[in-house]
Amino acid sequence: MRSPEELRALVDDYVGDLALTPELHGQAESVRYALVGGKRVRGVICLATAEAAGAEAEHALPAAASLELVHAFSLVHDDLPALDNDAERRGRASAWAQFGEAVAVLAGDALLAEAFRLALSYPFPQAGRELAQATLGMIGGQYLDITNSAPEESTLHKLKTGCLFAASVGLALWVAEVPEREQGPWRAFGDELGLLFQIVDDILDGDGYVVTHGEEGARRLADEAASRARERLGDVPAGTSALEHIVDGLATRKS
Amino acid sequence: MRSPEELRALVDDYVGDLALTPELHGQAESVRYALVGGKRVRGVICLATAEAAGAEAEHALPAAASLELVHAFSLVHDDLPALDNDAERRGRASAWAQFGEAVAVLAGDALLAEAFRLALSYPFPQAGRELAQATLGMIGGQYLDITNSAPEESTLHKLKTGCLFAASVGLALWVAEVPEREQGPWRAFGDELGLLFQIVDDILDGDGYVVTHGEEGARRLADEAASRARERLGDVPAGTSALEHIVDGLATRKS
Repeated sequence: MRSPEELRALVDDYVGDLALTPELHGQAESVRYALVGGKRVRGVICLATAEAAGAEAEHALPAAASLELVHAFSLVHDDLPALDNDAERRGRASAWAQFGEAVAVLAGDALLAEAFRLALSYPFPQAGRELAQATLGMIGGQYLDITNSAPEESTLHKLKTGCLFAASVGLALWVAEVPEREQGPWRAFGDELGLLFQIVDDILDGDGYVVTHGEEGARRLADEAASRARERLGDVPAGTSALEHIVDGLATRKS
Repeated sequence: MRSPEELRALVDDYVGDLALTPELHGQAESVRYALVGGKRVRGVICLATAEAAGAEAEHALPAAASLELVHAFSLVHDDLPALDNDAERRGRASAWAQFGEAVAVLAGDALLAEAFRLALSYPFPQAGRELAQATLGMIGGQYLDITNSAPEESTLHKLKTGCLFAASVGLALWVAEVPEREQGPWRAFGDELGLLFQIVDDILDGDGYVVTHGEEGARRLADEAASRARERLGDVPAGTSALEHIVDGLATRKS
């Protein structure tokens, strides 16, 4: 079983060398640009889950990449002037600042469509279905965010962040052919991961959960989510050391 | 076998009553708005092809709707100020003019993701795969258009319009479970349909093929495409009267 660092390198290389649809023509440049950098957390979770569930990590690479592409799609569109108006992303010009708004809109669209192409490279539709569902949740969350209309903070985060984290586990289960009736404990683990990631994100940025619960309160919520994630892993009938490392890494990360 | 008008009513009702993912929350309003109106040409072609190939038209409705949603997605994003800057669409305010740019970007995204959800409601991945491929072609075509970098007009139209018309036939073949080795003649028909639609569109708008070939030249090209489409139908081992009506309708339409 490989370490999260080794899995991250796998995802990074795969995404970097991804063969894009030739019909994209010059649009491909902005798609590649938007795929550079990032922690690949979602892809790594997918590979680690697939390995723990008995599949080859390599077999899960298209699924892992599809999650990274959906994540990149959401960043490219969220950064647009009409939404978050972020001219910088990962220490470089954001896609629209680099290529203009029109090409950035299309780059996000292309990332989303390529993500489905990848998730549908398996001989079954379930990975693609789960990706569609997670994407729709993210879009709903972004809508609640920009219109300031979320019923409560937890709903917002569950949609904006949690859906794609949960799908990172879910896609791996389909790839590893875990029967649906045995997926419950794994999915309970995936639900905690997204929450953990979000709370730690807010602690690092000093917003969200820190504003509503104070820094100590947020830290306590993060520790509780990490504990629940580890507990859920205990219910999973498999070797989960890489996933435990991922939980530790998410709980203690400094960036 | 039902007439194109009956099939159009089927598509229209299905799209109008479509159950959207609840997680979209308030975003659903703009998605519904963008789905009102339109000729439903792609959906009708899909249903007629499925019927000709031996499936129930009703069974092809999710596939037909997925094509209409991808079409609507492309219109919503193409209308944005940064792209074509169209404030009007189908006689009403375009999505961004009605809901603002931010919500319109998300509406397009949601239409695309919902389209995949529909195409993946079948127990096989091929319909979704073909939809992804067609979408990527459309995006590549739109890129060539806005950057004015198409190698030639026919490449541009093949991507911008042809891909989704071809997929309208292609998705129906998967839904009707036509074996891949028997799909060739059907697909040759689908390729002609997109070209026919585009040339007639240009004749009605007085641009594109009319500019490059004159009005008479464009009319001749349209008639040739219609003839080839009818010929291709002759190679198809099925009753194709509804599809012949569609070719006639596309060739002679006045709007």
